[in-house]
Amino acid sequence: MIKPQTLKGFRDFLPNEARKRQYVINTLRPVFESYGFEPLETPSLEYEEILLGKYGDEGDKLMYRFKDKGKRKVALRYDQTVPLARVVAQYQNELPMPFKRYQIQNVWRAENTQKGRFREFVQCDIDTIGLDTPLADAEIINVAIKAYEKLGFKNFKVLINDRTVFEGLPNYAVTAIDKLKKIGRGKVLEELVRKGQSKQQMASILSSIEGKRPTERLSQIFSYLEKFGIKKSQYEFFPTLARGLDYYTSTIIEIETKGYAGGSLGGGGRYDKLIGMFAGKDIPAVGFSFGFDRLTEAMEQNKLFPFDLQITKVLVTIFSKKLKQKSLDYTTALSSAGVSTELYLDENTKMEKQLKYADKKGIPYVVIIGPDEASTNLVTLRNMKTREQEILTQKDLLDRLV
Amino acid sequence: MIKPQTLKGFRDFLPNEARKRQYVINTLRPVFESYGFEPLETPSLEYEEILLGKYGDEGDKLMYRFKDKGKRKVALRYDQTVPLARVVAQYQNELPMPFKRYQIQNVWRAENTQKGRFREFVQCDIDTIGLDTPLADAEIINVAIKAYEKLGFKNFKVLINDRTVFEGLPNYAVTAIDKLKKIGRGKVLEELVRKGQSKQQMASILSSIEGKRPTERLSQIFSYLEKFGIKKSQYEFFPTLARGLDYYTSTIIEIETKGYAGGSLGGGGRYDKLIGMFAGKDIPAVGFSFGFDRLTEAMEQNKLFPFDLQITKVLVTIFSKKLKQKSLDYTTALSSAGVSTELYLDENTKMEKQLKYADKKGIPYVVIIGPDEASTNLVTLRNMKTREQEILTQKDLLDRLV
Repeated sequence: MIKPQTLKGFRDFLPNEARKRQYVINTLRPVFESYGFEPLETPSLEYEEILLGKYGDEGDKLMYRFKDKGKRKVALRYDQTVPLARVVAQYQNELPMPFKRYQIQNVWRAENTQKGRFREFVQCDIDTIGLDTPLADAEIINVAIKAYEKLGFKNFKVLINDRTVFEGLPNYAVTAIDKLKKIGRGKVLEELVRKGQSKQQMASILSSIEGKRPTERLSQIFSYLEKFGIKKSQYEFFPTLARGLDYYTSTIIEIETKGYAGGSLGGGGRYDKLIGMFAGKDIPAVGFSFGFDRLTEAMEQNKLFPFDLQITKVLVTIFSKKLKQKSLDYTTALSSAGVSTELYLDENTKMEKQLKYADKKGIPYVVIIGPDEASTNLVTLRNMKTREQEILTQKDLLDRLV
Repeated sequence: MIKPQTLKGFRDFLPNEARKRQYVINTLRPVFESYGFEPLETPSLEYEEILLGKYGDEGDKLMYRFKDKGKRKVALRYDQTVPLARVVAQYQNELPMPFKRYQIQNVWRAENTQKGRFREFVQCDIDTIGLDTPLADAEIINVAIKAYEKLGFKNFKVLINDRTVFEGLPNYAVTAIDKLKKIGRGKVLEELVRKGQSKQQMASILSSIEGKRPTERLSQIFSYLEKFGIKKSQYEFFPTLARGLDYYTSTIIEIETKGYAGGSLGGGGRYDKLIGMFAGKDIPAVGFSFGFDRLTEAMEQNKLFPFDLQITKVLVTIFSKKLKQKSLDYTTALSSAGVSTELYLDENTKMEKQLKYADKKGIPYVVIIGPDEASTNLVTLRNMKTREQEILTQKDLLDRLV
């Protein structure tokens, strides 16, 4: 017999987890939409040549690629940005410009799973395409902040920098500086010295970066944020933030969260050289990516999920074959009154097992109609948490649960 | 330059389409949940040996299969039933039994696209696992009816049969009878005669099937449906309904819709021999599958989508660099008051182009603050549909839009 198992790095989401993920998505969507970001979906599979070569060797190595039955070289979506670039080129006459879209879909990467990484995971991105205004950058930051707030996060801060503060610095220096927050000043200097630089020279470069003042673009962004009602304590100019080398062209953003050790919950910035790749011209763009798995984990740790994601309110049990009709009547009455009601579907299951079923599913109330209740036209309502039981008329039952 | 294009049979969903699909999903989920069906997500990629061989040669041929970087033979999800069977075996101690789950995910099939079929599409299934009661069948039918009603469908009917009415008939006869609704009695008889049967003999078999009475299981299901408040006009015993050969073991269900020529909007039934395949024993199951693409198409044709799926209510334009601050103020005031407000993000775009942008996105109102409005502390509100403009105070603007 075949062993029931999933591939390494791939996950099942059983109901409790699936509901939480759905809650995050359902909370984020209306935030994005209310600022004019519109949904986009692209295919899971694309021509390999569309996806390939945009992510560097690392990306090419991690991409799921194969030949389909028509011998076409195809690949699974590796991120949502290259498909977005394709869409922008392919539908340029149909799309509004600026094009503000959000996208929440799976991506696949043949990652090393030992590092706790997954090979299939959700990306959740907002991007504004076709404008290079600081106002567009500020809006992205504003929407990101509103989104984290809507999810219930309180202790977070947006670190903001401008890639241009590193102009003139060699790449290895930027790469080292980027680790400052993670490994500290001492270790960064060590790394630089290992690259053959004098410690003194590097300390002075580091100090000069740390002493930078916001660029003109950042100053404008900050003034817009203020206009949007964002508190000064919610963001910070962070001149040593680099977020890698290749992608971003000016504004860079990263979310820092207290009370969650799993890393940043999201980041983004301005990338003016990528989206035009299929259109044959530069198209400016700014975006933000929510770390969906980390977000869900951090919400769990911070107890930000509502208690009642399970919406079924009551399980109507069936006492016996003879009393089944009564249970059906109560089910229909409760459902018709708008109460989320589950009927236990088997008359031959012992009452104790039916109660356990409600417990396992986290259903808060159970209705029991035994011979006593039936003969008096009453019903027992059991609170599964307190284990208290009440005997009620149908009218009182409805009043209690509606 | 690489041509921006999608693979044959794969689709982009631009905002208007993506919103409609989202609407269908958001409408269905709470219906399923309110009857105790819980969400499940399984991976897109699984071991080939898990997925393979369960669908017959046709399935094996249409499945997307390849070797991953670890040389594992993997395949893309072909349906949601085999992964469900795996989940039921893999988590048997964690899952409540009966396990009632819904699943709304993509599947991939290397279909012949000439037939208007897609190679990536959404499946939307509800299933009750672990019970063989007619009550479980009736609930599935009830929930399907409630779901179509919730989406706004009116002229539909559930055809119901029991696979056992065909007992003793050869497979080719069942296959032919299954086409009765589609090609008519004459053509079915022709097909049977071509198989070498006498016309008279076959006409008599057909008549005997047509004259069948509901089985005991079906009679019980019909009485439950009545208890659930389903009208007699909403379902029909349909003894010539077969829905293929292999899968279903007793109850079979199919939705028939007037006013939509694209085929059935969904179907299902009882299949007691499949779910146990990884558990090493038979596990009874009943389910229903909503035809997501057809559903969306039929809703479009029947004008069942709400008018206002685009939720942004107003675009605040920017008249000039000088007046930008005013626009920011109004944006923040409207957003804070809970109005879905988009700010146009560029002060250098001509007003005419900003209005066209609102039109293209279907935003119903536009706010304009030009020099006249600014000097009198007023604002112009333009209704994009009627093209009427009003000059309002900020308070009146909020009153109008909140």
